[in-house]
Amino acid sequence: MQVIHTVSELRQRLVVEPTVAFVPTMGNLHEGHLDLVRIAHEHAKCVVVSIFVNPMQFGANEDFGKYPRTLQADCDKLRSHGVAVVFAPTEADLYPQPQQVTVEPPHIAQELCGAFRPGHFRGVATVVLKLLNIVQPQVAVFGKKDYQQLHVVRQMVEQLNVPVQIVGAETMRAADGLALSSRNQYLSPIERTEATFLYLMLMEIQHTLKNGVHDYAQLEETAINALVSHEWQVDYVAIRSQKTLLSPTAGERDLVVLAAARLGKTRLIDNLEVSL
Amino acid sequence: MQVIHTVSELRQRLVVEPTVAFVPTMGNLHEGHLDLVRIAHEHAKCVVVSIFVNPMQFGANEDFGKYPRTLQADCDKLRSHGVAVVFAPTEADLYPQPQQVTVEPPHIAQELCGAFRPGHFRGVATVVLKLLNIVQPQVAVFGKKDYQQLHVVRQMVEQLNVPVQIVGAETMRAADGLALSSRNQYLSPIERTEATFLYLMLMEIQHTLKNGVHDYAQLEETAINALVSHEWQVDYVAIRSQKTLLSPTAGERDLVVLAAARLGKTRLIDNLEVSL
Repeated sequence: MQVIHTVSELRQRLVVEPTVAFVPTMGNLHEGHLDLVRIAHEHAKCVVVSIFVNPMQFGANEDFGKYPRTLQADCDKLRSHGVAVVFAPTEADLYPQPQQVTVEPPHIAQELCGAFRPGHFRGVATVVLKLLNIVQPQVAVFGKKDYQQLHVVRQMVEQLNVPVQIVGAETMRAADGLALSSRNQYLSPIERTEATFLYLMLMEIQHTLKNGVHDYAQLEETAINALVSHEWQVDYVAIRSQKTLLSPTAGERDLVVLAAARLGKTRLIDNLEVSL
Repeated sequence: MQVIHTVSELRQRLVVEPTVAFVPTMGNLHEGHLDLVRIAHEHAKCVVVSIFVNPMQFGANEDFGKYPRTLQADCDKLRSHGVAVVFAPTEADLYPQPQQVTVEPPHIAQELCGAFRPGHFRGVATVVLKLLNIVQPQVAVFGKKDYQQLHVVRQMVEQLNVPVQIVGAETMRAADGLALSSRNQYLSPIERTEATFLYLMLMEIQHTLKNGVHDYAQLEETAINALVSHEWQVDYVAIRSQKTLLSPTAGERDLVVLAAARLGKTRLIDNLEVSL
């Protein structure tokens, strides 16, 4: 496995590869990431994983500074998973100049997480497009845990005709149901125990929807109130269309329940697809 | 020569080509375009020319509707210049949905032509990126006649890491110096005679700069006044840095003089590089 830090070296290394499958990450890898690597291997012999904590997608008051950077441990994990190349660029290599040219993401990027993280999806779309242009993979794998991110990336690829197939991977969970996330390690032991309640709320809504209840606003409000009573600060709980991420139209059957909420200083997100 | 109208057919056709050189146009081809094709041939055996009048780069009050569309004559010219593929997509094929995902161009896109054509360079950058993603050429050729466009495209390619080499081609001129442009045919015979005056003004500024005059504002104002006295409506005459398109810094030696002005209803642009 090669660890490459510059764009030019990476391009030189990959020019010989007929097909490449790509997994972009911010590092601090857990089983969820390694599952993306497994899926990538189904699409190409040469799997490239990028590790880059992208400043452009963090707000001024967010956790860019403290986001865990564990390159050595990450490389050890990836080596044992048959990854061909780890691309770990420096900020100066990916952003040699102030980034004036950016990707304006689709309107949906203003809603859900976008409403609470202004500029976040512009930063995501821009860095993902840059990485796709650098790696030029045939396939790129993203986790469904970041459901809105996956949706924004799919829309970008479609509307800008980017020549890549985007594959979405199911969310990996801890035994108690908590979605795996690098941010889980910010949680105190008590918070970690409480954290699973977010997933329980999503399961509860899924169950109620499957029982034929259609009053989405009421379901969202009930879940928000339950979370608040457990001392969560809730950004949103939302029942949306899987296809558009907008509010479901009458009779729409492929739904997704998304939530973002903070426990103490840690912001967690999760979602569950519900097909009626 | 093949004329292809859909993205999927084009991709299928080009998958066998190891290298492609690309010339994006809006059609109504003149000698300037054919020179771009000649340059493209220096870079690849397979030359692809796109013909698409891009609605996204026209303002509401501009000439999108009357822009000359001459596909048959264009194809005849390209056939005799050894072009392999003409890509002439429909609007529905390139914009199957309202285009929500766009390229935010660099700040310079707000100045010069951008100040008079709001949104123009966002439309240019977006369609060029789409076409580059569809054709996936190793080289793309653009004329220096649209100097600011070439600059914006270069910046986009650099900042988004698009894997293509951008080649700029010198402006082709009529015998009297008028830069070749599809919009020249809008001119009445009297206007056509007058049109060369724009080029004469650029030559005059070039001459004065080479004589060591450094008062750019004064030079610009003198040229604007001369054009106005000849009944031109002037958008701008500007002396800028070739490298940044910003106002030159002290001692900068590679300059470009750019102008945009209207004769009657026809807007003409032109520019001259001046290296001191």
